[in-house]
Amino acid sequence: MTPEEFRQAGHALIDWIADYRDNLEQRPVRAQIKPGEIRAGFPRQAPEKATTAAQLLHDLEHKIVPGITQVQHPMHFGWFPSNASLASALGDIASAGLGTLGISWESCPAATELEEVVCGWLRQLTGLSGEWQGCIQDTASTSCLTSLLLARERASDFSQNRGGLQGQQQAMIVYTTEEAHSSVVKAALLAGFGDHNLRRVEMAPDTRAMRAASLAQLVADDIEAGFMPAAVVASAGSTGVTAFDPVADIAAITTQHGIWLHVDAAMAGSAMLLPECRHLWDGVEAADSISWNPHKWMGTILDCSLFYVRDVQHMVRVMSTNPSYLRSSVDDEVRQYRDWGIPLGRRFRALKLWYHLGIDGIDSIRARLRRDLENARWFADQVAATPDWCVLTPVALQTICIRHQPAGLEGEALDRHTLAWVSDINQSGVAFMSPSTLDGRWMVRVSIGVEATTREHVEALWKIIRQRAQSIATNSEIEYDIGI
Amino acid sequence: MTPEEFRQAGHALIDWIADYRDNLEQRPVRAQIKPGEIRAGFPRQAPEKATTAAQLLHDLEHKIVPGITQVQHPMHFGWFPSNASLASALGDIASAGLGTLGISWESCPAATELEEVVCGWLRQLTGLSGEWQGCIQDTASTSCLTSLLLARERASDFSQNRGGLQGQQQAMIVYTTEEAHSSVVKAALLAGFGDHNLRRVEMAPDTRAMRAASLAQLVADDIEAGFMPAAVVASAGSTGVTAFDPVADIAAITTQHGIWLHVDAAMAGSAMLLPECRHLWDGVEAADSISWNPHKWMGTILDCSLFYVRDVQHMVRVMSTNPSYLRSSVDDEVRQYRDWGIPLGRRFRALKLWYHLGIDGIDSIRARLRRDLENARWFADQVAATPDWCVLTPVALQTICIRHQPAGLEGEALDRHTLAWVSDINQSGVAFMSPSTLDGRWMVRVSIGVEATTREHVEALWKIIRQRAQSIATNSEIEYDIGI
Repeated sequence: MTPEEFRQAGHALIDWIADYRDNLEQRPVRAQIKPGEIRAGFPRQAPEKATTAAQLLHDLEHKIVPGITQVQHPMHFGWFPSNASLASALGDIASAGLGTLGISWESCPAATELEEVVCGWLRQLTGLSGEWQGCIQDTASTSCLTSLLLARERASDFSQNRGGLQGQQQAMIVYTTEEAHSSVVKAALLAGFGDHNLRRVEMAPDTRAMRAASLAQLVADDIEAGFMPAAVVASAGSTGVTAFDPVADIAAITTQHGIWLHVDAAMAGSAMLLPECRHLWDGVEAADSISWNPHKWMGTILDCSLFYVRDVQHMVRVMSTNPSYLRSSVDDEVRQYRDWGIPLGRRFRALKLWYHLGIDGIDSIRARLRRDLENARWFADQVAATPDWCVLTPVALQTICIRHQPAGLEGEALDRHTLAWVSDINQSGVAFMSPSTLDGRWMVRVSIGVEATTREHVEALWKIIRQRAQSIATNSEIEYDIGI
Repeated sequence: MTPEEFRQAGHALIDWIADYRDNLEQRPVRAQIKPGEIRAGFPRQAPEKATTAAQLLHDLEHKIVPGITQVQHPMHFGWFPSNASLASALGDIASAGLGTLGISWESCPAATELEEVVCGWLRQLTGLSGEWQGCIQDTASTSCLTSLLLARERASDFSQNRGGLQGQQQAMIVYTTEEAHSSVVKAALLAGFGDHNLRRVEMAPDTRAMRAASLAQLVADDIEAGFMPAAVVASAGSTGVTAFDPVADIAAITTQHGIWLHVDAAMAGSAMLLPECRHLWDGVEAADSISWNPHKWMGTILDCSLFYVRDVQHMVRVMSTNPSYLRSSVDDEVRQYRDWGIPLGRRFRALKLWYHLGIDGIDSIRARLRRDLENARWFADQVAATPDWCVLTPVALQTICIRHQPAGLEGEALDRHTLAWVSDINQSGVAFMSPSTLDGRWMVRVSIGVEATTREHVEALWKIIRQRAQSIATNSEIEYDIGI
């Protein structure tokens, strides 16, 4: 494809994207298709002939888009917000156009240095001190794995340079809660700690926040038993119910025992752009690593997960590679981001943060976050004030966990009812929420915060929820579809 | 940013990208800047005010582009080709515009199913059997780490569900060569095997390919000593000298002993699009995992690394997470790519492969790869036929390792001369090559294969190389700058 052909096809694509984003509200939120339906639209055999960009754009509209759950739709309240602001998308488009290669400072000095710049900006904007240095990872899952690798090598005094974990005499222990994101357990297992060396610390029953006293006891017990406490992963805004572990209290314990503390603020990092929310991660300065995702609520298009550490030298010692074909004469003067994570090759992801902050501006981003917090409070108030409805957990940010519990409905019957009404709404395509479990029973998470979601959308959602749930509860003729 | 503002800024950006790509040849290949220079162009404080897309585009041109080493430049012969075909860039732009969220099939069925489709296409196009199933990872580094985690859990019968590597009684061993990519050692260390359990298998001195007989001996010795051979990483087209380990001979050993075999074909996978090259990885069907990077020579814009496995069930058992907030009623019928790798959230990367194959077509991609192979043979012939010049290793694909060795120049003096001429050319910005070491002495890798590189560019390179090296060798007045 020549630059001139690209120019023509690019203009058509930009127009299509602008129209697509403009008309998003008219599409169903959840993809209205069955497994295999999208795949069936494409030949099984690789195409031997080229086609045109116009044909691909036509197929994009007719064969791909029907298979997209519209997370940018104002009636999307599922999972967590995954905003892809158009300003940040523009930065991502610039990155695609440049076609750079990020394997060393030398291969693209601008990618390295702009990443330093924007990570510094986001550090300041979230109130972190100059002790922290950051980079962009793909996801908080990867950041969490990286943090546990750093913890492992600190606790074992660089066992990787000897027999690895295989030569480890004293078992190293990782602590987190059941409320932590699934990627935390995954990371601990992939890092080789083993499930038996993973402690699920007790949580406060109302907030599902880690109980620091329980952590202290477990650590003491493990030391007594001859084990080595190596890492604590604290959640700042857990995925299930947006629980906040008490970072300051936890940090007091980790500092005392030299345990690595990773703060997983994947969701709540965006909230830290608001000074009034920062009390939620009080004590974070005493952690060893932090990750949070601008690609969630803040709205810098996926993938954009920030990872901050204090001891860069330790990280580089664990993660570095320095083969001759990557060496250059300025190695001592520059940052080599390949030594800050797993992949060698890196995209120019700093551009999307730069574009996002540059075009939207931090003021409008902050105003939008505050709007969402207010909408969440309004929604929670409506639910709490309505008979047979309940808000199940404290609303720390913008996610509300609810249940409709008419008199007499309990246990599995209640589960069936919950899944019936949320499934009914999700399948209709008019709105989307995530069913989830709390203490073994289904509930519904309403996560407010899509860029396009206004108060009117939240009001419409509440009306739909009440109507569907109450209609299903009073009409036994309706066949329950307990698919989620 | 509204869709209409995006439309306007997007058109301007598309025009800028088309012009940029069209005029690339007029820019210096290597960024002509010093460490810190790009960073200094930006404020240290986060901007409190928004700006315009037009201003950012101006800054992109004047503050960012000077810091880019132009790997799309026809005179770029460094590292390996990192082609970002405009067709694939268009697919990446579509991905940015859609703003999808890939955390489960349900969150974007199209992203999952198109990835299945294109991975199937590339499987066929590289001659792999239907035994393989694939996904897209960011880089071959991540694929290699994933493969060693799979190997670790197979050899240890899922130690992660018990005490992890910490409870491992019988040390598990990983085998590779010194010629393997730096990410292989990094992956083995991160996976927890430990450096002492990493064997560097002897290589044939001429080709630097792994000696299967040496591998067999090491494996036998380790078994004898009570260790457990767990994984072999074979290189198909190593980074240093494009060495090809003998996969069939290695596979005979790994199959016999139940050792996991990962084939790292990061570079050479592109060559397997050509049937005449497939003998280079003969025996690959007996491997357990394969990775290769369309984002290298083939030209699907970074990041696009394919990872194929045969035992999907094993992989999912090692990598899976299934929290309630991600469960859906179709989980048994669909592929959940979050269980095929480390990150949970995934971009819609299949679009760029679909666009690349769709617009450029496999025929033109194959023709271009054959053009590069011919150019490499021509270049190698010129070097070999010229007095004082030598081609140091077999030219298996498109990378030629050369040295200028005038009579009397040896040892460190030869190193200084090599670094002097390559550094002189690289610093001039007229062309770029990667210095590297071979048996402890510097040499220069000329890696041909940028999409825009024609025979004329290769002829120009050879002329420049001869002139600079010979001029430096005969003019002792020139100050040697041994910076690389």
